[in-house]
Amino acid sequence: MTYRAPISDMLLALDGAGLRAAVEAGHYGDFDAEITTVVLEEAGRFASDVLAPLNRAGDRHGARLQDGRVTTAPGWADAYRRWTAAGWNAVSGPEDFGGQGLPLAINAACTEIWSAANTAFGLCPLVTLSAVEALAAHGSDTLKTIYLGKLVSGEWTGTMQLTEPQAGSDVGALRSRAERASDGSYRIFGTKIFITYGDHDMTDNIVHFVLARLPDAPDGTRGISLFLIPKFLVDADGSLGARNDIHASGIEHKLGIHGSPTCTMTMGDDGGAIGYLIGEENRGMRCMFTMMNQARLCVGLEGVGIAERASQQALAYARERRQGRAAGTSDGMSPIIAHPDVKRMLMQMRALTAAARAICYATAVSLDMAARAADPDVRTAAAARGALLTPIAKAFSTDIGNEVASLGIQVHGGMGFIEETGAAQHYRDARITSIYEGTNGIQAIDLVTRKLAADDGAAVSALLDELSDTVKRVEASNDPAFGTTGERLRDALGSLERAGKWLLERLESSPNDALAGATPYLRLFGSTLGGCKLAEEALAARESSAEFGDPRRYVTLARFFAETIAVQAPALERTVIDGADAVNGADTVLLA
Amino acid sequence: MTYRAPISDMLLALDGAGLRAAVEAGHYGDFDAEITTVVLEEAGRFASDVLAPLNRAGDRHGARLQDGRVTTAPGWADAYRRWTAAGWNAVSGPEDFGGQGLPLAINAACTEIWSAANTAFGLCPLVTLSAVEALAAHGSDTLKTIYLGKLVSGEWTGTMQLTEPQAGSDVGALRSRAERASDGSYRIFGTKIFITYGDHDMTDNIVHFVLARLPDAPDGTRGISLFLIPKFLVDADGSLGARNDIHASGIEHKLGIHGSPTCTMTMGDDGGAIGYLIGEENRGMRCMFTMMNQARLCVGLEGVGIAERASQQALAYARERRQGRAAGTSDGMSPIIAHPDVKRMLMQMRALTAAARAICYATAVSLDMAARAADPDVRTAAAARGALLTPIAKAFSTDIGNEVASLGIQVHGGMGFIEETGAAQHYRDARITSIYEGTNGIQAIDLVTRKLAADDGAAVSALLDELSDTVKRVEASNDPAFGTTGERLRDALGSLERAGKWLLERLESSPNDALAGATPYLRLFGSTLGGCKLAEEALAARESSAEFGDPRRYVTLARFFAETIAVQAPALERTVIDGADAVNGADTVLLA
Repeated sequence: MTYRAPISDMLLALDGAGLRAAVEAGHYGDFDAEITTVVLEEAGRFASDVLAPLNRAGDRHGARLQDGRVTTAPGWADAYRRWTAAGWNAVSGPEDFGGQGLPLAINAACTEIWSAANTAFGLCPLVTLSAVEALAAHGSDTLKTIYLGKLVSGEWTGTMQLTEPQAGSDVGALRSRAERASDGSYRIFGTKIFITYGDHDMTDNIVHFVLARLPDAPDGTRGISLFLIPKFLVDADGSLGARNDIHASGIEHKLGIHGSPTCTMTMGDDGGAIGYLIGEENRGMRCMFTMMNQARLCVGLEGVGIAERASQQALAYARERRQGRAAGTSDGMSPIIAHPDVKRMLMQMRALTAAARAICYATAVSLDMAARAADPDVRTAAAARGALLTPIAKAFSTDIGNEVASLGIQVHGGMGFIEETGAAQHYRDARITSIYEGTNGIQAIDLVTRKLAADDGAAVSALLDELSDTVKRVEASNDPAFGTTGERLRDALGSLERAGKWLLERLESSPNDALAGATPYLRLFGSTLGGCKLAEEALAARESSAEFGDPRRYVTLARFFAETIAVQAPALERTVIDGADAVNGADTVLLA
Repeated sequence: MTYRAPISDMLLALDGAGLRAAVEAGHYGDFDAEITTVVLEEAGRFASDVLAPLNRAGDRHGARLQDGRVTTAPGWADAYRRWTAAGWNAVSGPEDFGGQGLPLAINAACTEIWSAANTAFGLCPLVTLSAVEALAAHGSDTLKTIYLGKLVSGEWTGTMQLTEPQAGSDVGALRSRAERASDGSYRIFGTKIFITYGDHDMTDNIVHFVLARLPDAPDGTRGISLFLIPKFLVDADGSLGARNDIHASGIEHKLGIHGSPTCTMTMGDDGGAIGYLIGEENRGMRCMFTMMNQARLCVGLEGVGIAERASQQALAYARERRQGRAAGTSDGMSPIIAHPDVKRMLMQMRALTAAARAICYATAVSLDMAARAADPDVRTAAAARGALLTPIAKAFSTDIGNEVASLGIQVHGGMGFIEETGAAQHYRDARITSIYEGTNGIQAIDLVTRKLAADDGAAVSALLDELSDTVKRVEASNDPAFGTTGERLRDALGSLERAGKWLLERLESSPNDALAGATPYLRLFGSTLGGCKLAEEALAARESSAEFGDPRRYVTLARFFAETIAVQAPALERTVIDGADAVNGADTVLLA
């Protein structure tokens, strides 16, 4: 069972995310939206032909560390060469350094495609993309000249090295140390863990971006600096020089994404790794924030991609596999898709996937407009919207990625538990997405303490107004196929608004109450936003019936989401508000 | 991190399940409830000392097939010998054949313990237990004399062989054939898949229970017969004779429970496996129904056990691991258990686990009373209750087993994704429990089409009355520590009642509507029942404060469950009722 990029669904989702409207309003500069379909179709072809067939081999063989060198699974190095040769690494890179400068919205759709085809492979360019962003925004011209073009093209890959054993979510606790050298460079010492593609055999060089602390740095996050540390030093003429003092000293045995080497990196066994400062000393966290939104969005898109892949596989199986006779049919066994309980699971997979996609693409369009719009007011509003949506895009999409992958196993019955079927790999691969790039709990706390609270809730209010308008249009459509969609979404918006207000009050008076409600609030936000976005897409599909296929498809999906998922909003509101006491009184249970 | 059986929680749950009341009312015959604590403590010790330490080895090494023979992981055969020597296999077996004849309620608690310590190991005696039940209820005296004692003691193990490639949930589609032999025995031919402990190296002999079809049998489930097929034939003096024509021809590579060999079994390569009829020809499904309730309950208990194990591990980690500073504390990093978002996850784990345990134990007490009570009216009512609760015990408990194991990973952050941590194994092991012994979708359909519909809903009504009484007592307690528990549970009972009525109507008029709502109805049932049972336990703990430790522990847990889980009941009611249209109109989405 291979993967086919769902081009119509993606185009409709981009439309629903406001891409077309933003382009027409001139907020995308000179971007020619006409190329979107062609890019996605080409990406889909590359994914189906090159990446998807290697997904299983990556899982079974995994990446291996031997004699200090990591080798990737058979076929991966060759696929990576084809990847860079076809220009896929450069889609969103800066044009001055060989990138195609396409909007994030387009790269978001591509990221979904790579993740669906082969999550573990797709991770490598995602990490490089973060490196590109950090270097482009904060690197010196010298560093950019040497490194940026090669990172954009993918000739070299990047890594992001934050985590240490005692410093996970709490980045400020890191201890790797940097010493100033007389030539203006630095010597770095320390150990980093969980480093994605920390070493591999797909490129000649690897450019590590490492957080470390100078001897005279203040404690916590205000004393962290960012360094560029090449695996091989680069001579003045651009040729590779000596091996630098940074090595993969371990590789993790993980639940999933076996194809992606997760390394322990050791620096300083031989005098210190030579590093170059990015940005200013002690301002490394600022550089990290530059790329955080995009990196978190991309992890959300991994959730969408895995969910889409799992859905396609489950659907194909449910159409083939015959068991039992469905009610109202005659003669022999029915394909299991005819059984309502299986239909329900498949609809849930489809609806959750489509909602997460809609949220992620809307986030991408906001981040694009924040960077590209000419009007500074538009940019400011878009930046606030993008900042608000990012934690939801990350956490909601990865949560549903896990749920959808689990349903994918369930649809397969006993076969789902057998590794050869492939459904289990999606389930294992998906599990990391709720954890890395800020756990989903961290996302929820970010949503409540920073994004909701920013500007006294202005970004949330503006969004609620837009979503309320969508609901009005659903109701005005008078289309009985929407069922109770309007009612459910209106209730959900009310719950979202009340819960937000309550949290804002508690943030001041009793922060632990607000923190206790963060995760259910994020789920409430994602369900409400996703429901409204699917309704918006359904309305758009109705209005342009031919472009995206049968509009009833989208109306039914929006209805299913509203009536079986967004319907949970009032309960989530209560969980936020009533649940805080029991959470904060938990010590009687947990410490007994 | 080892496992410690939560004896107080289990004793309170048995109490809340009605064990003490039933014993006092004389419904347990001569069972001496005083021994309960001692049995559970001994079981906990055996589990911690012998089974839990082998759990990781079973996962890493797995069971292997070579030259037609299956070997289990290092240490397993020895542990199995200790298991039978200590008498644990015989806990609930019939006394006439060497069993201890203890009630199912006691064995249920033990089953939870074995599953928590080592799910893959615990599966072997569970399958043997089904074999014991089938043989005891339907076997001839001759067969019982030869086989039953050895199955009860565990000297030999059993297998249950139903599934074939084309016959999974649809058992009636099986094709294995049986031919009558002149000596009254049968020759069996065919291939079975997914056979748990189909072969292994822990005992001298294995007694297979195999469903097959006689040449002149009617189609479907009414033409299936049950046969006993020993791995080695047994001579008249009880000694082992020739190897029978039934062999493990394959072993599955699975997502989890690697320690448990899941075999493809081939019969008839050499003239046919010699088998002996159990019960009557073509009545094999009746024999299966005999053991179905207990087998399903035991799988539910696997869910409880894994959830308990995952909770203990996450809690221990959260008390040790330090990251960030919790609001309202000073000086350095806090243990992550101090962060409200982590507390919330741990409470969710504890509350879901306790609710599932309460439901499973209540099911066990009902099944016990149905078998043991002197009064036939009591037996009849208990049988109806047990039949009603069984699909909920199975599906709700295994669903939450997966949820809790996933939360267990999340609490560990990045470490949760590393296999050595162990949290991932619980997650992988749990996933099968929602599938085997009737998928959870099958359980939901059974609940709606058979159990709810039986006697026009009488069993449900009787239960609702009891639960409503619990809610009244919560309200009458006037204990502010209960928060809005009473309100939430009362709402949930209303939703459960309305959804049930709607389903009963639709079962007649539009069965696909009822089937579409089966899974959300089961969840609604489980959440409501679980919430009321935890409230019942909290009331019991308050009334006997010393016996189960600090009663506030149980009140807080009940409150958390009611306010954050049972609170979803109204949304689930709507999902059942409103969701049917979108599910049954799904073809526009799924077949596009």
